[in-house]
Amino acid sequence: MTRWPIPPSMQRALALAQEAARAGEVPIGAVVVKEGAIIGEGRNAPRGTHDPTAHAEIAAIRAAAVALGDERLTGCELFVTLEPCAMCAGAIVHARIARVTYAASDPKGGAVEHGARVFDHPQALHKPEVVSGLGEAESAELLRDFFRERR
Amino acid sequence: MTRWPIPPSMQRALALAQEAARAGEVPIGAVVVKEGAIIGEGRNAPRGTHDPTAHAEIAAIRAAAVALGDERLTGCELFVTLEPCAMCAGAIVHARIARVTYAASDPKGGAVEHGARVFDHPQALHKPEVVSGLGEAESAELLRDFFRERR
Repeated sequence: MTRWPIPPSMQRALALAQEAARAGEVPIGAVVVKEGAIIGEGRNAPRGTHDPTAHAEIAAIRAAAVALGDERLTGCELFVTLEPCAMCAGAIVHARIARVTYAASDPKGGAVEHGARVFDHPQALHKPEVVSGLGEAESAELLRDFFRERR
Repeated sequence: MTRWPIPPSMQRALALAQEAARAGEVPIGAVVVKEGAIIGEGRNAPRGTHDPTAHAEIAAIRAAAVALGDERLTGCELFVTLEPCAMCAGAIVHARIARVTYAASDPKGGAVEHGARVFDHPQALHKPEVVSGLGEAESAELLRDFFRERR
């Protein structure tokens, strides 16, 4: 039996999450894709950089915006290994990202399908399409292993 | 008659907002204060920097975290000229800021007393004290003048 292969964009986000874990950061990775090519990527790094805003999504969005020379990532997609928090969901709105695909849900800190539900209010001036569950098991395993080792 | 003086921290945030306007950015400014001293400041800059996350609060928080060498701004206060959006409210949570004071409310994009109400969900792992209205008229005037000139 062959397991359905995870698309390359989410595979790269999962690899970035593993890189975060090796650096002692909570394993979350993200990439921004435009017309099939990765134009920005990032991994969780708040501890190492002393930057509370250094989430994977923020890093990927900032890198993509620099690459395009535009604060708006119109027509771009974001792939991330965990449901975005309120901060990252807000950044996704500001960047006008067309579609967000995340792997695992995050009932404790998520703000897409949980809590603040940032995309579901008129104050979100842009509402991306949202897809969840792609690479869910792989992402959840990385997070479980990370927190198990630290207990 | 003497108008009640705005405290220096909010005065500085208002000056940063004016600086933003002069640079063609929506006039919003912010400072982070610890034990009475400003340890980080920022102003809105997404257009000039091609960075959709370059809000005043994010800049001030990042600068303060670098200054302290700590991703957590425990015991710090944030003064900002406009009600924070979801992204900035989320960053305030991650930074563990003790108190947020903002000048004007923002029904269109705010996420503290409007819309996502980021601090009011269990997914916000920290809930800062919130004070609003300090320097409200001054901040609202800066925003009104900015948008009037651009109409």
